[in-house]
Parts: sequence; C-alpha cells; structure tokens
Amino acid sequence: MKLAPARCWHPEQRFRPRQTFPRSPPLLHRYYANQPPTPRPYNAKPTPKPLVEARPAAPKPDSASNPSTGYGPKAPEKSKGGGGLRIAVGVVIMWAVVYSMYADPLRAEPPSIAERDDLTKRESGVTPSSPMRLRMESFINEQQKHIVQTLETLDPDHRFRLDSWTRPGGGGGVSCVLQEGEVFEKAGVNTSTVYGTLPRPAIQKMRVNHKALDPDVESLEFFAAGLSCVLHPRNPNAPTVHFNYRYFETMDERGECNAWWFGGGTDLTPSYLYDEDVIHFHRTIKEACDKHDRAYFPRFKQWCDKYFHIPHRGESRGVGGIFFDDLDEQEKDQEQLFSFVKDCLLAFLPSYLPLVEKRKEMPFTEKEKEWQQLRRGRYVEFNLVHDRGTAFGLNTPSARVESILMSLPLTARWQYMHEAEKGSREERLLKVLKEPRDWV
Amino acid sequence: MKLAPARCWHPEQRFRPRQTFPRSPPLLHRYYANQPPTPRPYNAKPTPKPLVEARPAAPKPDSASNPSTGYGPKAPEKSKGGGGLRIAVGVVIMWAVVYSMYADPLRAEPPSIAERDDLTKRESGVTPSSPMRLRMESFINEQQKHIVQTLETLDPDHRFRLDSWTRPGGGGGVSCVLQEGEVFEKAGVNTSTVYGTLPRPAIQKMRVNHKALDPDVESLEFFAAGLSCVLHPRNPNAPTVHFNYRYFETMDERGECNAWWFGGGTDLTPSYLYDEDVIHFHRTIKEACDKHDRAYFPRFKQWCDKYFHIPHRGESRGVGGIFFDDLDEQEKDQEQLFSFVKDCLLAFLPSYLPLVEKRKEMPFTEKEKEWQQLRRGRYVEFNLVHDRGTAFGLNTPSARVESILMSLPLTARWQYMHEAEKGSREERLLKVLKEPRDWV
Repeated sequence: MKLAPARCWHPEQRFRPRQTFPRSPPLLHRYYANQPPTPRPYNAKPTPKPLVEARPAAPKPDSASNPSTGYGPKAPEKSKGGGGLRIAVGVVIMWAVVYSMYADPLRAEPPSIAERDDLTKRESGVTPSSPMRLRMESFINEQQKHIVQTLETLDPDHRFRLDSWTRPGGGGGVSCVLQEGEVFEKAGVNTSTVYGTLPRPAIQKMRVNHKALDPDVESLEFFAAGLSCVLHPRNPNAPTVHFNYRYFETMDERGECNAWWFGGGTDLTPSYLYDEDVIHFHRTIKEACDKHDRAYFPRFKQWCDKYFHIPHRGESRGVGGIFFDDLDEQEKDQEQLFSFVKDCLLAFLPSYLPLVEKRKEMPFTEKEKEWQQLRRGRYVEFNLVHDRGTAFGLNTPSARVESILMSLPLTARWQYMHEAEKGSREERLLKVLKEPRDWV
Repeated sequence: MKLAPARCWHPEQRFRPRQTFPRSPPLLHRYYANQPPTPRPYNAKPTPKPLVEARPAAPKPDSASNPSTGYGPKAPEKSKGGGGLRIAVGVVIMWAVVYSMYADPLRAEPPSIAERDDLTKRESGVTPSSPMRLRMESFINEQQKHIVQTLETLDPDHRFRLDSWTRPGGGGGVSCVLQEGEVFEKAGVNTSTVYGTLPRPAIQKMRVNHKALDPDVESLEFFAAGLSCVLHPRNPNAPTVHFNYRYFETMDERGECNAWWFGGGTDLTPSYLYDEDVIHFHRTIKEACDKHDRAYFPRFKQWCDKYFHIPHRGESRGVGGIFFDDLDEQEKDQEQLFSFVKDCLLAFLPSYLPLVEKRKEMPFTEKEKEWQQLRRGRYVEFNLVHDRGTAFGLNTPSARVESILMSLPLTARWQYMHEAEKGSREERLLKVLKEPRDWV
C-alpha cells in the first residue's frame, strides 16, 4: 500500500479543489522543503527557537491516569454500538501533548526507539512495510500540509503561522494557526508526536480496553501521534468544525509493537442550521465509514452525540459527526483500521469545504453575529469544563498551553438569561442541540 | 447590636455617595417594598414565575464531597497565615446554590427549621438577639439592595434585572444582573440562602476544619447564606472586581446552632495597572481588616494570591485582595467574626467605586479594548477551569446555571501566541500577575 501523497484526494470525494496550489506559501514551503523525518524547531524569524523548551524535570507519572486517552483517572468502559456511557474518552486538541507531560521520565538522550525511528526514516524513508507509527506520522504530516494549503486558497490574503516544537523524550509537533482572516476568525491545524514511557498502574488501567498489553512489565514504551483541527469561520452562517485523528501504540525495548489502537472523529457546530449542509457533512463521513463497515457510522455518530454533550446546558456542542476511540485488533486488523482512519481524514475537506465556500460571503446581521458569539461561549464551556483532555492538559505542568487552547474561538460571549425567540432560527438550532438528530 | 440599615455607611469609609437615592428603581422598589423575610418568586412581569422550579427529585448526596466549601472531594487543610496550600477552598459565585443541589434530600414540606425561621422573621423581625443565620441573611439582603442601588446611580440609563428563585427544601435567592450598560458591560449581585441536610460522610470531612461538628450523628441540618458580586466595566482602564461573603452553620433538630463559620473575600482584576487604584483598593480593605486583627490583612492577602492563581498560565487572575474561609470559634467568637465580615462587605463600595468613577470615562483605543478582552479570556479560564465551586456547580444536575455563570464577562477573546510588547503597560501588568505584590 502506498501512502497518499499530499495532493492525492480520496476517489469518492464530492468536493474537488484546484489540483495545483498556484502559490506555495513561503513559510510552508520553507518548512516542508527542509522537513526532516521528525519535527524540529522551526521559526520564520532569523533565529529559530523551540516554543516548548526542554523540560528541566519531568513530572512524576500519574499512576491513576489513563494514558490510553489522556483523560484522567477513570478507565473507559468498552463501548460498542453506543453501549454504556464511556466516561474517559473524547476528542481533544493536541491530545498527544498531554502524554508528553506526565508519562515520560526525563531522559538525557532520546529513547532508543525514537532514535532508531529517526535513523530508519532518514535512511529508508517511510514505506508500506514500515512500522505503523511511522506510517501514521508520515500520513498526518502530509495531511496537515495539504489541509493548511487548501484552507489558504480560500483566503488568499492570509497565511497560517507555523510553530514547531520538539520534546526531549522524542517527538514534537507543528502548530499551524491562522487568525483574523477573511474567512476564518481562527483556524488551527496541529500535529503532535510523542515517545514516552507508561508506568505499571497506567498499563493496568489500559488493559481494561486492550488485552494485548503485557500485564507483567513494570513499564512500557509508548508512541502517540495525532492531527487536530478546529476552524471557526467569521460568517455566522458557516459552521465551526473540529476533527482529531490519532494513533497510539506500546512497544517492547526493541521497538516491536505490543499493543496499538486508533481513535478520532469529526463534529460540526453551526450557529444557524442549514439542513442541507449538515446532511452533506454527515453523508460524506458516512460514505467514508460505509466503505469499511456499515455499522460504523451509526455507532460512531451516537458516540459523538454522547461525547460532545454539555451536561450543565442539557445540549450538545454541535449537531454531530463521528467519534471513536480504542479501535484495536478486537475491532479489525491494523491495516483495515489505518485505512478506515485515513479515509475519515481524507473525507474531512470534502465534508466541510463546500459548506464554508457556500456560506462565507452570505450577508449577516449584527444580531446573527451576536448569536454566533453566544454559541462560541458554549464551545468554550464544553472545551474548558467538560473536555477531559483539555482540563488534564491545562492542569499539567509545562504543557504547551497555546497549542491546547488553539481550539478556543477568537471571541465569545456570555449573556445572562438569553432566550431565543419563539419560532426563530436560533430556537430551531437549540431544539436540535437538545435532541440530537440522525441526519442521513 | 443593631443591623446596619441599607444606607448606613461604614464610618471609616473613604467614599461617600449621595445620602439619598433620588430615583428608586421601580423593580427594586417593588421587590423590596413587598419583600417578605425569605426570598420568594418575583418577576417584573404580570405573572410571577420562579426561575428555578421545585426539583422533582433531589440528587443523591455525594458522600465524597466537602460541603464546607462545596468544592468536591478534597478536604481542605487548615491554613493560617498563608500556611500549606488549601486545596478545597475558594470564592465562588452563587456558591450556596451548589449546596442546594447535592446535600438536601427532597422534602414534601420545607424543613421545620426553615419554617420556624420564617415564622420568627414574620412575627418578631430580625434583632441582634436573633440566631446568626437570620442576622447574616438580613444583612446580605440589605447590602444587595444598597449595592445595586448605588451601582445604578453610576449609570442612570440602565437598570439591574432582578430574578428571584426559591427552593423546595427552604431558602432561595435573588440574582440582580445589569448587562450592556454605559459603565458596566456586565454586573451581577446575587444572594443565596439554603436550608439542607448534610450526610454523615460530609460531616466527617468537615470535621477536619471544624471540631465542633458532632461526629456521632447520621446527618445534620445546615444553613448557608452568601452575597456574591462580579462587576465587569466597559472601560479597559476600570478594573473588574469580585466579592463573596458567606456564612455556614449546622443545626440540631431544634434549630440550635451546632457549628458555624464565615468565609469570603474580594479581589481586583485590572486590565491596566494604576498603582494608586490598586493601593486604594487594598488600603480600604486593610483598614477594615485592621480594626479586627492586624494579622488578618497580610494573611488573607496571601491566601487570595494563592486561590486566584491560574496554574496553567503561571499567573494570577488579578492583583489581589483578600480571601478567607472556615473562620470559626477557633479563630474568634461569632460576634467578632460577624462584625469583621460586615466591615469587609461595607468596605466594598468605598474600595471600588472611586476607581470606576475615576476611570469610566477615560478615552481608550481599540487595542486597549482588545487587551481587556484577552484578560477577560483569562478570567473565563480561571472560573471555568480552576474554580472548584463553578465546576462542581455546573456538573450538578438542576443547578441554576445562569446564576453560576453570571460571573463570566459579556465578551472574551483568545488570541494564539499573543505577546505583550516589551516595556508596554500590558507587559507591566503581566509581570505583576506573575509575581503578586504587596500593595500596602
């Protein structure tokens, strides 16, 4: 199997942008042209400086935490087909950053596996026979570039800012953020790769979902890589969107994979409901899912509605999408799941771009803008109050806060006792948020 | 001792508003003119309707929670003079609302103590020989009215909206909120009174700080009352301010007080630092404290800096003030502490009003407004991520979310990688937030 090159679009995609990107943004160009196999410090300024410094001392691993999700002490129940409430799962921006802060004791040298992976990438490149961790990393790096370049074509006068960071234990990330553009008030597309060590209590927690984990070891090396994206458009008629796709594996000392799983999802958060947009979004994702398993879409849509619920408001953050976690060999074989995750990620631009293209220049009133800002307030509430990964990351010493909080909108509003007018478009949205709907 | 009437100002106050309030806001007038001893449903509309309905069923008491603070499972360490980090304490808007949601099983009838208190208030009024709970309730009700009326004199074209709510177990509250005024973008002044029942595990947790609690009972009746206020001015030169003062007691079946304590504090959150303003604020509070104990101000200032720290930003929410909790008979006798809390609350208007009067009409630039919005983003981060009371309240079924989130600013902003210019006023504020200063 060949990895999709950056411009290789999914054959079933509905949306087809220009096949060439006439202008190669200088920052992106400089970054990717010189990109070594692992992320490294990069800055457009003359003196590159990593934005996350080497930590002077690693925090003590939290034995009660569950690194399979990075979402705190509670071990997630196995959830299939929308079964019992999964407590400790969820999508989180820069989720892998979290791993880096608590599960990896300080090393003077990068761990041998990270070094060996670096060498492999330099000498042989990444091929279909490379370990999955290298293939996933390569895929998300390519997709980040592709998505950033495509989004920039929408807004020719604005560029993403690129910040690259490395971590001493191995791995790093690239945060690409565009602010105050014509189309997007705030847009972030971030990669993160982490090599670390899981302590025994964490391994035991993870065994609830992953029996392949060796229960008899004191610690295990792990690898995590993910691509996250949040887009907040300016026009209140264009919906906010989020996705995160991630891969996690544990390795023995020689770097042989011991246990692995995929997680991810995408969800749509409109301020005004255009049924055809929401249907298009869900249908595109459903097509990607159906190619692999017709049970996936209904199961992961339900999981999404559960995860993005804001209990204190009694409403969902958005109108749905998909969400899944811990998909391992009990689900399907590794190649099949990688192929599924790739198709989901490749479906992102076709699922979303037509919506923002259609809505970005629609006229809107000040009142509609204000409603969008109120909805952004709810987005902030979900991310800061209920998203376990965000909370865990923010409470972790030395976390890269700017990458974690990239997900927050540029501006938000809280209005005491705001009530949507009877029969209004605002009220219609609220109804759907209170009772999630199946769109396809 | 006589309770201070609404217009009786503290003799040592520096700020003296008009002694009469020439216009009595119709809503306030109607409310207070007809006010019975306990809060009751009130609405300016023809058909009064309580905004918080009677709960159909009370949530199960959380045995691991600590009702002395309402801040979740961790029992606070006793902290004197800025000793070891107090984990489970803090100021929270509508903190008493939280009690109402988890510690009080549903009763078909109000508990006998609440009924008896109602009767006492109706028949004899509240006198210096009344139980402390009635005196505190009466005091905060009067102060709410006084503060709201005084704030309205600053902004003659805008009125506070009043929402009254009751709870079936006994007690209730009044939320007064002004939005989009000339002077204040958002201002909230809320009272809350709760009668409830503490389960045995909660009592045992609270005994860490309060040895007077009977360890041999299965449950205890409790009472809590507090007044909270958050003011977010429009002008970025005028600081945001917050205070909360509260009283808690447990009672035996006959309504006799078993254990009691006071908590509270006030803190200032400027976007731009005017040293003279911050000094005035602290000096006014210090004078109130010094009348009672010269050790109080330094001790409670340090406690404030600790409580309002935002760990993930490595900075404080504001520039300080005071914070205290669990002040009981081990500290001073009840009359002395009530007198102290009253003086603190009476010092609020003199500590803050001169600042907003001086700054409310200062010219400001768009850039300065933007900086204020960024600081408001941090305010939201503290309140939603780190304030244990807010988080606990929001996660509690049937909480009055609008009252809890009254504390959030009308608008806020998150800008990726914002950096204050070297030598700027913004940078100067950040320095102080990173290293809290003693102002007097």
